[in-house]
Amino acid sequence: MKNIIVGQSGGPTAVINSSVAGVYKKAKELGIDKVYGMVHGIEGFLKENIIDLGEYLDKDENYELLKRTPSAFLGSCRYKLPKIDGNEELYEKIFNILEKYKIDALFYIGGNDSMDTIKMLSDYAKEHHKPQLFMGIPKTIDNDLPITDHCPGYGSAAKYIATSIKEIIRDNSSFDKTRQTICVVEIMGRHAGWLTAAAALAKGEDCEGVDAIYLPEIDFDLDEFLTNVKSLIKKKASVVIAVSEGLKTSDGKFVCELGDEDRKVDSFGHKQLSGCAVTLANIIAKETGLKTRAIEFSTLQRAATHLASLTDINEAEMVGMKAVEEANNGKTGMMVIMQRNDNYQITTDTYDIHNIANVEKKVPLEWIDLDNNMMKEDFINYAKPLIMGELLPIFKNGLPTHLIRK
Amino acid sequence: MKNIIVGQSGGPTAVINSSVAGVYKKAKELGIDKVYGMVHGIEGFLKENIIDLGEYLDKDENYELLKRTPSAFLGSCRYKLPKIDGNEELYEKIFNILEKYKIDALFYIGGNDSMDTIKMLSDYAKEHHKPQLFMGIPKTIDNDLPITDHCPGYGSAAKYIATSIKEIIRDNSSFDKTRQTICVVEIMGRHAGWLTAAAALAKGEDCEGVDAIYLPEIDFDLDEFLTNVKSLIKKKASVVIAVSEGLKTSDGKFVCELGDEDRKVDSFGHKQLSGCAVTLANIIAKETGLKTRAIEFSTLQRAATHLASLTDINEAEMVGMKAVEEANNGKTGMMVIMQRNDNYQITTDTYDIHNIANVEKKVPLEWIDLDNNMMKEDFINYAKPLIMGELLPIFKNGLPTHLIRK
Repeated sequence: MKNIIVGQSGGPTAVINSSVAGVYKKAKELGIDKVYGMVHGIEGFLKENIIDLGEYLDKDENYELLKRTPSAFLGSCRYKLPKIDGNEELYEKIFNILEKYKIDALFYIGGNDSMDTIKMLSDYAKEHHKPQLFMGIPKTIDNDLPITDHCPGYGSAAKYIATSIKEIIRDNSSFDKTRQTICVVEIMGRHAGWLTAAAALAKGEDCEGVDAIYLPEIDFDLDEFLTNVKSLIKKKASVVIAVSEGLKTSDGKFVCELGDEDRKVDSFGHKQLSGCAVTLANIIAKETGLKTRAIEFSTLQRAATHLASLTDINEAEMVGMKAVEEANNGKTGMMVIMQRNDNYQITTDTYDIHNIANVEKKVPLEWIDLDNNMMKEDFINYAKPLIMGELLPIFKNGLPTHLIRK
Repeated sequence: MKNIIVGQSGGPTAVINSSVAGVYKKAKELGIDKVYGMVHGIEGFLKENIIDLGEYLDKDENYELLKRTPSAFLGSCRYKLPKIDGNEELYEKIFNILEKYKIDALFYIGGNDSMDTIKMLSDYAKEHHKPQLFMGIPKTIDNDLPITDHCPGYGSAAKYIATSIKEIIRDNSSFDKTRQTICVVEIMGRHAGWLTAAAALAKGEDCEGVDAIYLPEIDFDLDEFLTNVKSLIKKKASVVIAVSEGLKTSDGKFVCELGDEDRKVDSFGHKQLSGCAVTLANIIAKETGLKTRAIEFSTLQRAATHLASLTDINEAEMVGMKAVEEANNGKTGMMVIMQRNDNYQITTDTYDIHNIANVEKKVPLEWIDLDNNMMKEDFINYAKPLIMGELLPIFKNGLPTHLIRK
């Protein structure tokens, strides 16, 4: 391969840049000439918004800084390629740009939707006998890509969530029963509860853990929820509950729609998914007369690189490297996957993108302790290794430093 | 002094436990016998809810862990002593407990309201010729205690805010103008804007900084705000604005009351102060048709010990030590204050509690750049030294560990 290009797509994570770093590292090991970056994914690529990563990453300190930089260094996009039939002009444009820059392989770091881009481009290349190779690199805090054991980005989000939940539990415990407070923490994940489940990791010798966890995999029942809360407040001064933003009742209503009618749509008439914790905290306050607090981690949970998991960073780098290695072996139309053995030794492989794009992996129901609204040991054993280790920020003037595009 | 007691009061901070550590350390240096802790402040003290801190802190590793533990290790309260006149029985009860435990000095770590407790107790002791000494130790993320240059707790909250704002700005910049997003970040501070002002610290070589800052010291004008936002979105794809939870219009209305009428009171008819960012984000979405996001740091900003400022931790320990030293010199009815010179060398002193209790210090108006809704260099120079340095958590199983009461 002469030159290659890498892009980032979809919601960013704390370690999405470590995969860019891995792509660059392996390319240099293999003697590849130029490693280009597409700015704002395939959308920017179509405008030839392309940079030479060598201008940044030939300096070791920048490479280290990139691994500690949150969000998409290259910029991201949410752009789905149209079906090939009838859109050949667009596809030809993409291949013309690849040819113009003598790019032999394209790497795309993303989740379910982004893997669709790799599927479409590799399909088109096959149909039209184009020589370029297309490889997907997994990334999503949601951890919902199939086949791979887990997704880079999830471990760091889980570490942030568990750490913050521990701190919230300590804070919420500062007053005694005379100022009893019920805290509802809203965590990302519209369809899959992997992130919300990570709240269970807070529990340990020095932390009582959250008092209940509600995942979108299970139909939400407000009566059961309130019964549980009322039972908890009899037992404890401080109650902390983790809920997924995507909670829905059995009739398909989002929890945030259980509150005031005017909150359920945004100014365009779209359903807004924020506000699940606020809705539940308000309902609890009305029902119990107690002080409640709603906390949303919002984008902090995907951007908090200052608390990233070293395991996650290393794996994100590793899958980036693997993608380049396998493209160099001639593979295309694949996504890199991770597999673990019982000692959490991770091996990487590749898998046909057609079985991955647009498929969502949810939390197995048998890992959910329905009787106690808690995660079972199986989940803890699965998630614990993912949050291990730290890669500390490089602090300057008291703040973590980042690498940004010129 | 034979024995002493220390208590924590009001909203906790990331470093309030470092002041407990400082009290213990100096007491041991001075050969004081027992250092008691009151559980849940003066309220717990009245129930004789008292522990022996030596049972925890004689181990060096616990001392180090205490400095890394968020929230009030001893538990906190929000309890204001009643006026002495007519409540002599209550005051006698307090002094009886002090005598029972042979306690010669009481130390109270807190903010404006908590310093009132020291004022009342030292006043009562003076009037009734009691020998016990009472010293206040400053603590508040709000940084609104008078006389002292700044308050322990503020620096760590400011460091958390500036770090998180940096990460939010990176995250919000990941998409281009086709997915322009305006992010409104709500920061604590009902009357004083010190915490919100700390958002200005995010700006640097690797960060463009927030686009506007709105403090409660300035009457909020919705028209000016919207004009500013509309001007910003013409210039930039990503707009991030920091607002104080306590923003009020010139006619005294909280910003969260500008939205739907039903949001302005909680279930008890109390005005709710959360929701300022949500209200503004909704108004911006309606006015511009653009995607908006509201983020509230909530209790995370006072509990994130994993990102505490080493300067803050050291100073919190220092003021604890100073309080014991000065009580040992016979001082009473004072709060420890900090003073700085031009090179940010901090010296400690004590100050008459009557000039401190119940007084609030706001951000000087001349530090606010009204034309640009930004902080002036004077504020940056004031706040920068407070966030310097880190005391890293002791990680176990991927998470920071804490010291908790048995």
